[in-house]
Amino acid sequence: MFVTPHGKVETPAFMAVGTLATVKGLDPEDLRRIGAQMILSNAYHLHLRPGDALIRSLGGMHRFMAWDGPILTDSGGFQVFSLEGLRTVREEGVEFRSHIDGSPRFFTPELVMRIERNLGADVIMQFDHVVPGQSEAPVAREASERSVRWLERCAAEFDVLGIEGDSAGQPYDMQALFPIVQGGIHDALRIEGAARVAAVRDWHGFGIGGLSVGEAKPDMYRILETVHDVLPRDRPRYLMGVGFPEDLVEGVRRGVDMFDCVAPTRMGRNGAAFTADGRLNIRRAEFRDDPRPLDDECDCTACARFSRAYLRHLFVADELLGLRLLSLHNVHFLVRLMRHARSALLGGTFDAWATAWLARYHSRSPVPR
Amino acid sequence: MFVTPHGKVETPAFMAVGTLATVKGLDPEDLRRIGAQMILSNAYHLHLRPGDALIRSLGGMHRFMAWDGPILTDSGGFQVFSLEGLRTVREEGVEFRSHIDGSPRFFTPELVMRIERNLGADVIMQFDHVVPGQSEAPVAREASERSVRWLERCAAEFDVLGIEGDSAGQPYDMQALFPIVQGGIHDALRIEGAARVAAVRDWHGFGIGGLSVGEAKPDMYRILETVHDVLPRDRPRYLMGVGFPEDLVEGVRRGVDMFDCVAPTRMGRNGAAFTADGRLNIRRAEFRDDPRPLDDECDCTACARFSRAYLRHLFVADELLGLRLLSLHNVHFLVRLMRHARSALLGGTFDAWATAWLARYHSRSPVPR
Repeated sequence: MFVTPHGKVETPAFMAVGTLATVKGLDPEDLRRIGAQMILSNAYHLHLRPGDALIRSLGGMHRFMAWDGPILTDSGGFQVFSLEGLRTVREEGVEFRSHIDGSPRFFTPELVMRIERNLGADVIMQFDHVVPGQSEAPVAREASERSVRWLERCAAEFDVLGIEGDSAGQPYDMQALFPIVQGGIHDALRIEGAARVAAVRDWHGFGIGGLSVGEAKPDMYRILETVHDVLPRDRPRYLMGVGFPEDLVEGVRRGVDMFDCVAPTRMGRNGAAFTADGRLNIRRAEFRDDPRPLDDECDCTACARFSRAYLRHLFVADELLGLRLLSLHNVHFLVRLMRHARSALLGGTFDAWATAWLARYHSRSPVPR
Repeated sequence: MFVTPHGKVETPAFMAVGTLATVKGLDPEDLRRIGAQMILSNAYHLHLRPGDALIRSLGGMHRFMAWDGPILTDSGGFQVFSLEGLRTVREEGVEFRSHIDGSPRFFTPELVMRIERNLGADVIMQFDHVVPGQSEAPVAREASERSVRWLERCAAEFDVLGIEGDSAGQPYDMQALFPIVQGGIHDALRIEGAARVAAVRDWHGFGIGGLSVGEAKPDMYRILETVHDVLPRDRPRYLMGVGFPEDLVEGVRRGVDMFDCVAPTRMGRNGAAFTADGRLNIRRAEFRDDPRPLDDECDCTACARFSRAYLRHLFVADELLGLRLLSLHNVHFLVRLMRHARSALLGGTFDAWATAWLARYHSRSPVPR
């Protein structure tokens, strides 16, 4: 559990992703009813559109999107480095072109801190250098070392912003800055990177970046174990951009406290739903007259009210309500999964619970009636 | 006010349109919170997809779409007759091709009654012959007279279905059949049509069809006055396919009790919002940093929580939440408008209220800050 200016977050926790200050297809009220504790948004995207200065002038992200719970903003490192061919990395920062209008941009650690300050999230991530998951050690080392140097610059700018104060000139300490540990799939680099990051200052929490970006799953799991051993035990660890239900369970098993991923909403919009017995695609003909809910054991508002037959009808007919209901179900599924993981951890039964949960999720597919 | 098996409906009332068993972009919970009393769906569309027999097998429309309030189904006459070039009218019925897959279909009054019975709405409309609003008297006469003959066949089949009983063989009287008065923009035809319809039996209510289909507004208003004088005073009159806010006020002024129209949801999806001062399009640049709600006087959940700036951002970024929020606001606007009309009618102040309301709605456009 950790505490933010907008409430506490029980861990492990899944954060729904609201890249553009809206979790796609869902209303903040939906998220509250689902039991979502914290949501994630993105500095890169909001800087380009509608603009972080605009959001600040309208009272900050919480007010802008009518979500009064905790918010975390990613810095946009991942987005900027995904613009292959459109960006140039220098020590000072990254030159790139906007994916919206092609306009030239230059992100530095300092600018990103100012953007995230304008947005006003509770937790803000450092600007980092992200490389593909299969990168060789020299490439991963360069990115990891640059990320540490940029972390130092982020921290310095973050302090300046705190001293500059809020709009009334009062000292501002409403945000926590999280560093991001890089190092690819190379254990030695991860150990070294984690140590360097931890040496910069006493952080409220740690991001684990550069995973789920193309590397093999066993590599990701091994790196989590490696990092687990070297990060401070009493601080939350946030595995960035992960994941699917099985990834969450495997991550918690390896000490991860926070996750985020677009999967539940993106898959929901495509008609795919998580169930305790694996994924199903609601468009399949077998669901045409199926009176059962998506998942018998789910207590989300979609499962409480609607049949698979109705949900399939919505998707076949291209009706908007279908997108919302499956997105809602999937986010609820992950939030509930993490609630069950918390219970199991508190009860000392996590390993048995996780093993049984994964076995069922992987071994069965939904059975037609 | 009138009473249905799924609750009472205070009139005048606006019915949100859920053509495919979903009011586009909205959840049944949204409709309940808005105060929507009755919603409309469509026999033609649901027969083609997902099929009325399927819906019956799943417990009927109310259960299928999780709306336990009153439902009205239109017969599909309007839809079938809109398939210009794709349909052939005979006295027996109408041959046409499905707009989905081109398959040949044949709708008769008897089949349409069975479809609407399968769907299980509280109020079902007769199968009628609809012609364009500018039709000459001979064409309008033919359609009106055929509609009366089809009404007699609908009524006979409706009685047979009632005697056949429900799935347990019990007599079935859970639906009300409404006739539809046709006659185009020709007063004499409307008077004659209304008299013939009323002579068939003692109806629970009357549909007024063939308006808002291309005729001039003054013609529509005059026909409403003509029909008002000849229909039984103590039965609700339902003006089909109307309308916009100003049409509702003008309609109530001329005795109309029920309305339906896709305008609030279709316009909402296009970014257009009703306000007391007229329509606004939320995409306009002037709203980029506008902290005000869509409509200062509105108490819908969109206006209570979100600024025009945020709503504009959602539309500019193609975010689904924008579609839902503007649809919700617009349906709420019409439901609330009819609530105000009821209060004014009960208080004996309707004419003054309507005049002031229309003057404000027509005379001003939203003022930039």
